[in-house]
Amino acid sequence: MEQVSHTPSVAILGAGLIGAGWAALFVHHGANVRVWDPAADALEQLQARMRAPLAQLADVSPDAGPRGTLTLCASLSDAVRDADLIQENAPESIPVKHALYAQIEPLMAAGAVLASSTSALTWSDLGPGLQDPSKLITAHPFNPPHLVPLVEIYGTDPARLARAEAIYRSADRVPVRLKKDATGHIANRLASALWREAVHMVQDGIADVEAIDAALVNGPGLRWSVLGAQMAYHLGGGAGGMAGYLAHLGPSQERRWAALGSPTLSADVQNALVAGVAREVGGRSIRELEDARDKALIAVLRARKVAPHV
Amino acid sequence: MEQVSHTPSVAILGAGLIGAGWAALFVHHGANVRVWDPAADALEQLQARMRAPLAQLADVSPDAGPRGTLTLCASLSDAVRDADLIQENAPESIPVKHALYAQIEPLMAAGAVLASSTSALTWSDLGPGLQDPSKLITAHPFNPPHLVPLVEIYGTDPARLARAEAIYRSADRVPVRLKKDATGHIANRLASALWREAVHMVQDGIADVEAIDAALVNGPGLRWSVLGAQMAYHLGGGAGGMAGYLAHLGPSQERRWAALGSPTLSADVQNALVAGVAREVGGRSIRELEDARDKALIAVLRARKVAPHV
Repeated sequence: MEQVSHTPSVAILGAGLIGAGWAALFVHHGANVRVWDPAADALEQLQARMRAPLAQLADVSPDAGPRGTLTLCASLSDAVRDADLIQENAPESIPVKHALYAQIEPLMAAGAVLASSTSALTWSDLGPGLQDPSKLITAHPFNPPHLVPLVEIYGTDPARLARAEAIYRSADRVPVRLKKDATGHIANRLASALWREAVHMVQDGIADVEAIDAALVNGPGLRWSVLGAQMAYHLGGGAGGMAGYLAHLGPSQERRWAALGSPTLSADVQNALVAGVAREVGGRSIRELEDARDKALIAVLRARKVAPHV
Repeated sequence: MEQVSHTPSVAILGAGLIGAGWAALFVHHGANVRVWDPAADALEQLQARMRAPLAQLADVSPDAGPRGTLTLCASLSDAVRDADLIQENAPESIPVKHALYAQIEPLMAAGAVLASSTSALTWSDLGPGLQDPSKLITAHPFNPPHLVPLVEIYGTDPARLARAEAIYRSADRVPVRLKKDATGHIANRLASALWREAVHMVQDGIADVEAIDAALVNGPGLRWSVLGAQMAYHLGGGAGGMAGYLAHLGPSQERRWAALGSPTLSADVQNALVAGVAREVGGRSIRELEDARDKALIAVLRARKVAPHV
C-alpha cells in the first residue's frame, strides 16, 4: 500500500460546501491546500465555511498532528501548477467540466492527479475533456466529505490511482476502488436500490415514511455502520458462513427480490413522501437536522476508533 | 403512547440464540421472564447462553434499574399462563407454529399478546393457527436482538399492539409498526433490495464484494446509523427539502432505478460471493467476527445515547 512520502499539495477547485469540506479535511490532516473558485465571493466566504468543519475534525481526529497551510488563489494556475492532487468540485455539467479540464491539463505537474468529486457523472463522461484521460480519476466523497470516510475511486492509470489513494488515506479517508466505471459509483447505487423499495412500501401502503426511516436507523443501518451487508449474511449462515447462507437462504432471497417493487415517482407518491418526511422532521429546520446529523456522526466515528467496524 | 403500569411478565418460547437474546434483554430491563423450550438440553444451556448478552447489556444500558427474574419452565403452561407477552421463537414452519399456537391459545390470560419473532413468515401465514387471530402479532427482532433496537410489528388489535409496544419500549427497543402485512417486514425488504444491487455489481464486474462492503460501512451504512434514507434526501434537497430534492433529482433517481440490476444467484455468482467474503474475512472465525460486531455495536449504541440519531 503506497504511503505519502512528502507533505501533499492539494488543489481544491470550487469553494462551495463540498470544496470547503475537502479543504478543511486536508488542512486538518497536514496538507498544503490551495483553493480556487471562479466566483470571488465564494473564495472570500471559504474560511467562514471551513470553521465548523475544522472544529468538528478536531473532535473526530484530535491526534492528527500539525495543520497544513491554506492558500486562497486568485488564478487557476496558482492553485494547480504544483499540486499532487487537484480535487475538482465544479458544477455537474460535462461542458463546464471539459472546459475547465482544458485549462488545467497544460498546467499540471508531471504525475499529478486530476480528481473529480462528481456524483452524477462518470469517468467515461469526463475523460474526453483531456488530451490524456489517464490523468483523470473520479473520486466521489459522501456528504459531508470531512466526516464520512468513503471516497469512491475510478481511473485507468495504476500509478496515479495508488498515489491518489495514499493522499486520501493520509487524510483519514477510506478510498474504495471500482473495477469498472458505473453511474452512481457503488454507494449511490446501493442507496438508490434501497430507496426504490422504501418508495415502493410507501406507494403500496406497507409502511409510512417515518416508520421506514426508523426501521433503517434502528435496524440494518445501525448494523451496516459496523458490518457490511455481505459480511452480515456470512454471519447469518451459521458455521457454513456465506456458502451456508446461499445454500439455505439463497432461494428465499431470490423469491424476495422478485417481490420487490418498481415504483414511479407519481404526484401521489411524491406528496406522500413529502408529507411523511414533514411528519418525521416535526418542525426541525434543515440547519438543526444537519447539526444533529453531524453531532451523531462524530460520536459514531469516535466510537469506531475505539471499537473498529468488522 | 402507552406505558407499562406494572412489571411485565414475558414468556420466551425457545431457548436458542434468539430466545436467549430476548430473555437477557427482558431480564436486564426488569421484566419477570419465564422460558420454555421443548428440548430439555436447550433449557439447561440457556443461562450459559445468556451470560454474554447480559454482560453486553450492562455495558449498553448500565442505568436500567434492578434486574427482573428468570424462571426456567418445564411445561409450556407454566411459561405462558400468566404472561402479558408471549414471545415465540419456534422454527420457521407454519405447521410447527400452528401446532404450538393451538396449545397456547387456551392457556393465554385475557388481553395477553402472542408475538412471533418470525423473519420469513407473515401474520397472514400464522393467524389461522388461532381461533382468535387478533391475539397474535408478528414482532420481528433484528439480530442480535438484545443489541439492535428494532422490533417490527404487525397485528390487527389496536389495544394489543399498544400494550406490546409499551413492553418492548420498556426494554429499550424501538417498535416500528407496519400498516400492512408484508413478507420480509420492512428492514429485510430494504436489506434485500440493497443486496440485490450488491450482487449485481459483483456479477457485472463493477466492484468486488469487499469493496462493496467497505463502501457501505464507510459511506451510506455509517450515515444510516444516524439518519434515515429519506431524511438524507430531505437534507440533500437544500432549502427545498424533500420537495426540492424530488423536483431536482427525482428524474435522475428514476433513471438510476432503471439501471439497477436483476441478478440471479448462479453458480458463478455464488462462487464470486463466497470467494469475496473469504478475502474480506481474512481468516477470522465466525466467533471473532461476531465478537468484533458486538463490540462495535455496543460502542455505537453508547455513542447514540450521547448524540441521538436524527
